[in-house]
Amino acid sequence: MARIVQKYGGTSVGSVERIKHVASRVEQSVKEGHELIVVVSAMGKSTDELVSLANQITGTPSKREMDMLLSTGEQVTISLLTMALHECGIEAVSLTGWQAGMVTEASHGNARISSINNERVEAELAKGKVVIVAGFQGISENSEITTLGRGGSDTTAVALAASLKASRCDIYTDVTGVFTTDPRYVKKARKLHSISYDEMLEMANLGAGVLHPRAVEFAKNYKVPLMVASSMEEVCGTLIEEEVSMEQNLVVRGIAFENDVTKVTVRGLPNRIDTLPKLFTKLSENQVNVDIIIQNQYDDEHVNISFSITQSSLKETLVVLEKSKDNLQFADVSFEEGLAKVSIIGSGMVSNPGVAAKMFEVLAQNDVFVKMVSTSEIKVSVVVKEVDMVLAVEMLHEHFQLAGEVREVVTV
Amino acid sequence: MARIVQKYGGTSVGSVERIKHVASRVEQSVKEGHELIVVVSAMGKSTDELVSLANQITGTPSKREMDMLLSTGEQVTISLLTMALHECGIEAVSLTGWQAGMVTEASHGNARISSINNERVEAELAKGKVVIVAGFQGISENSEITTLGRGGSDTTAVALAASLKASRCDIYTDVTGVFTTDPRYVKKARKLHSISYDEMLEMANLGAGVLHPRAVEFAKNYKVPLMVASSMEEVCGTLIEEEVSMEQNLVVRGIAFENDVTKVTVRGLPNRIDTLPKLFTKLSENQVNVDIIIQNQYDDEHVNISFSITQSSLKETLVVLEKSKDNLQFADVSFEEGLAKVSIIGSGMVSNPGVAAKMFEVLAQNDVFVKMVSTSEIKVSVVVKEVDMVLAVEMLHEHFQLAGEVREVVTV
Repeated sequence: MARIVQKYGGTSVGSVERIKHVASRVEQSVKEGHELIVVVSAMGKSTDELVSLANQITGTPSKREMDMLLSTGEQVTISLLTMALHECGIEAVSLTGWQAGMVTEASHGNARISSINNERVEAELAKGKVVIVAGFQGISENSEITTLGRGGSDTTAVALAASLKASRCDIYTDVTGVFTTDPRYVKKARKLHSISYDEMLEMANLGAGVLHPRAVEFAKNYKVPLMVASSMEEVCGTLIEEEVSMEQNLVVRGIAFENDVTKVTVRGLPNRIDTLPKLFTKLSENQVNVDIIIQNQYDDEHVNISFSITQSSLKETLVVLEKSKDNLQFADVSFEEGLAKVSIIGSGMVSNPGVAAKMFEVLAQNDVFVKMVSTSEIKVSVVVKEVDMVLAVEMLHEHFQLAGEVREVVTV
Repeated sequence: MARIVQKYGGTSVGSVERIKHVASRVEQSVKEGHELIVVVSAMGKSTDELVSLANQITGTPSKREMDMLLSTGEQVTISLLTMALHECGIEAVSLTGWQAGMVTEASHGNARISSINNERVEAELAKGKVVIVAGFQGISENSEITTLGRGGSDTTAVALAASLKASRCDIYTDVTGVFTTDPRYVKKARKLHSISYDEMLEMANLGAGVLHPRAVEFAKNYKVPLMVASSMEEVCGTLIEEEVSMEQNLVVRGIAFENDVTKVTVRGLPNRIDTLPKLFTKLSENQVNVDIIIQNQYDDEHVNISFSITQSSLKETLVVLEKSKDNLQFADVSFEEGLAKVSIIGSGMVSNPGVAAKMFEVLAQNDVFVKMVSTSEIKVSVVVKEVDMVLAVEMLHEHFQLAGEVREVVTV
């Protein structure tokens, strides 16, 4: 018997039928003798509906009141799933975030978990009950309802798993696992049996969209083995854990990519120590999220700085720069739209210094021009033309031998 | 400056537009300098929608999980109303039942309030905020979410008013006040300026449908002046309080009535001390709600017992009686459908013993045959044929001089 935390996302509990299906999955795990804690999100589009109600009232809802409003979504799901389990003859009890002892910071909309008081959950488990917990929500020290922001339910699940010393945290979603690259674009994409936390973190940050980076980081810090699997299909998922067996430990483990990238270049900035912080503080103050940053010296007194942003931030970026022209003292601004970012990821890169060079070579052989480069210890990202994106991914996928037979890993 | 509790029901907050309208009403009261606590119900049909979700999952939802589910309804309203107030520039904060310190018994679905911890509400009022409280819900000593059952939000409002020593509790609803009788049936029905708790209690219990009897009882016990008024129209409502001015204190203050009454007669029961308790315990065990009860001696050894029930309980009643025939040892059962109950109410009756006789006389003069009679200190109820109901009400309304000019009472 293992203690397992399962998490089902909004799509998996999007209708009464799907909630019944989740109940049958939980029933199966109960019959296998596991001790279960189940974390759920709000039903499918219900969060959007609540947001729309708020928007009909005000364009600037208070964050506290949004938390009050949105936290009802998961509360509906936990009660319905618990009823569905009772209907299967399973003893179960639902708990809101505050009932489950999920204590967070006092901030609203994007609160961080500060501690978990397990008393109630342990008491219910001791009674032999399946405990259904509302994801995404918590309570601050001064009894305010808070929410954890994007990826919140994943984080709730991992945090509970860590705190309850669960042997595994299973994240059930609408994909069957983590793939070497996006299977919607690359047919040869292969599901990974396992992947390390760091690799998953890079994949998650690079738009693989399966798991929120925050949840992966939490899992890494507390060494919680994570399993990403499908809530619909009965196939094995991907295990995310510290150690990846040597046999599977290829240099490149996956390729992430995203389009809608825009490159902005600010030319003729003064070559001074405060130029970089001044520029990027201005942008961040205006909620412009910058990804890759490149600085080139232009002459002794001037530098050019390029950075990448999403297409949707371009207008705001240009406005901010125009307003700050006197303050920042630059010469001019140019931009290039219609770009994409392609990244290769793998913890094996640390001990294989030639990987970036190999990547550039493959791209050059296929006439893919690299506009920007950014590297970390376990990933290399390049910005290319959007029209070259899928070709670049396919060529890299092929070159780094990521395609292959799907070998399912047997889960605990 | 007065401290006032206002309560808005489901219809009054049934849409975003109506919530905005309620916000403007609250704004007005704030500008008059009052300290405000506002209790709201779930939006219009939202409770029905939640119940329907539960019914799609199970025919027998656990009461605890229903409370978990239904309590989200008011939580949505409090956040939206608070946002609407912020939009008007009013400082406001929403509180769930548990945040407002509404402590109840541990039972679910129909919990009684056991105490109120005002700390949080007082703290928010001290900050100059309007406090928006979720009606209908509370928390048990062991941190379970509970609901108060039918009329719950009215009860929340009155209980808060009592506990916070508010000078008044205003119940805003879709009628403009309490009438001498139902204005949909009797054109000459007149809105009452004021009415006593006891009279209102009889009116409420007799199907006047404006206020839940439980809330009236609470108000009576804690001497909270209640105002029933329209959330839509700007007219004065009806004040419910202990003392009614002598001038207005007519012998009969109002006439309540309801149809769908069925009379059941059980004949030839043994004339023994345990006959009554045995019969009505059997019925109540099977959720048959009995209203008027009449017992006639038949001969030395036998009695006949008649009682009135709602039309919808007839089938169940006959089944229960059939099953208990050996145990209860009666001869036979008969019933009469298509009946109605008409009641005259007034605290002045206590000192006017001839009122019942006058009522029978008026009915007899109009050829209305009385099938059953039941009296209390401040009301007389008769069961008549349903076809005679409206005529009976009109004649009594006329005879007891209830019609008259509407004289609005000026509220505090």
